[in-house]
Amino acid sequence: MPHLHLEYSANLRELEVDKVLLRLNHALVGSGQFAQELDIKSRARAFEHFRVGVAPVERAFVCVRLSLLSGRSPEVKKQLSGSLLEVLKDAVVEVSGRELQLSVELVDMDRDSYAKVLLPA
Amino acid sequence: MPHLHLEYSANLRELEVDKVLLRLNHALVGSGQFAQELDIKSRARAFEHFRVGVAPVERAFVCVRLSLLSGRSPEVKKQLSGSLLEVLKDAVVEVSGRELQLSVELVDMDRDSYAKVLLPA
Amino acid sequence: MPHLHLEYSANLRELEVDKVLLRLNHALVGSGQFAQELDIKSRARAFEHFRVGVAPVERAFVCVRLSLLSGRSPEVKKQLSGSLLEVLKDAVVEVSGRELQLSVELVDMDRDSYAKVLLPA
Repeated sequence: MPHLHLEYSANLRELEVDKVLLRLNHALVGSGQFAQELDIKSRARAFEHFRVGVAPVERAFVCVRLSLLSGRSPEVKKQLSGSLLEVLKDAVVEVSGRELQLSVELVDMDRDSYAKVLLPA
Repeated sequence: MPHLHLEYSANLRELEVDKVLLRLNHALVGSGQFAQELDIKSRARAFEHFRVGVAPVERAFVCVRLSLLSGRSPEVKKQLSGSLLEVLKDAVVEVSGRELQLSVELVDMDRDSYAKVLLPA
Repeated sequence: MPHLHLEYSANLRELEVDKVLLRLNHALVGSGQFAQELDIKSRARAFEHFRVGVAPVERAFVCVRLSLLSGRSPEVKKQLSGSLLEVLKDAVVEVSGRELQLSVELVDMDRDSYAKVLLPA
């Protein structure tokens, strides 16, 4: 905890995804919400097969999903999604003439059944 | 919003995934539930590594996950999953002798913390 | 139902992912929670682009997400995540000197709107 998934349309070839992941992780560390920086597990995935809407227009998206153990307040969640969206806005180069959507979703993970281990202990 | 994920076992080589995504998006537009067609962000992924059950039989699956901002009624959700399943049934060629599972899951996204931006504004 | 997603950092080249999926499925069958073994749909994905925390250290992760139709008790869920974590601990070879995180998350799927079909019927 937390888990972060970055998903983006593969037409964003200019995206420096490793840099973006590091910046997103720094934003999470900076939030002060997480006890240990190593808890933040982020991964990224480009999608070659995607479709935004139905119009014959080139479009792109970058979507972040942040999964947290349940229990954080709505205010904290809103701050987290807002700060991650700022990173995306800053990091994703806008290409003129193409519609680009950025989004951040927060997901509550069931705390009682979540199981984890860190090795070596 | 909404986000659609199409996941399928990579033994379904005959799947025309771009066509299926477009048909799913048309089904969503046709539902009248979404203000703008460009809001629908769909992506697909084949899984080379998968396992259905434990029996030594060739099996396949196509799974759709549709994520919506929270607040829609159970009836609306049921209609949406039903219409997406119809698209899958129609689009996925059944290969004789192989078990094929199709499924549609609806996910509520937390509305308060969801953040997005469309560029250029 | 159920759906299992196995995600891992691509630096775990030694992971025999097909074997791990089969062992996870056997653990689920052994739980007695699922009527039919063929209902268990598991898939795995390696992530080439990932970042654990912010420190310049090599780290790795293996994360399982198990999605179930809603309604199971907290005790049952805890048993399921515990047994899946045991499989991971046993299956993932620990490489000395590298931090490795294993985790299991359980997700409730909305039962009312879940739609599925098995072909041929």
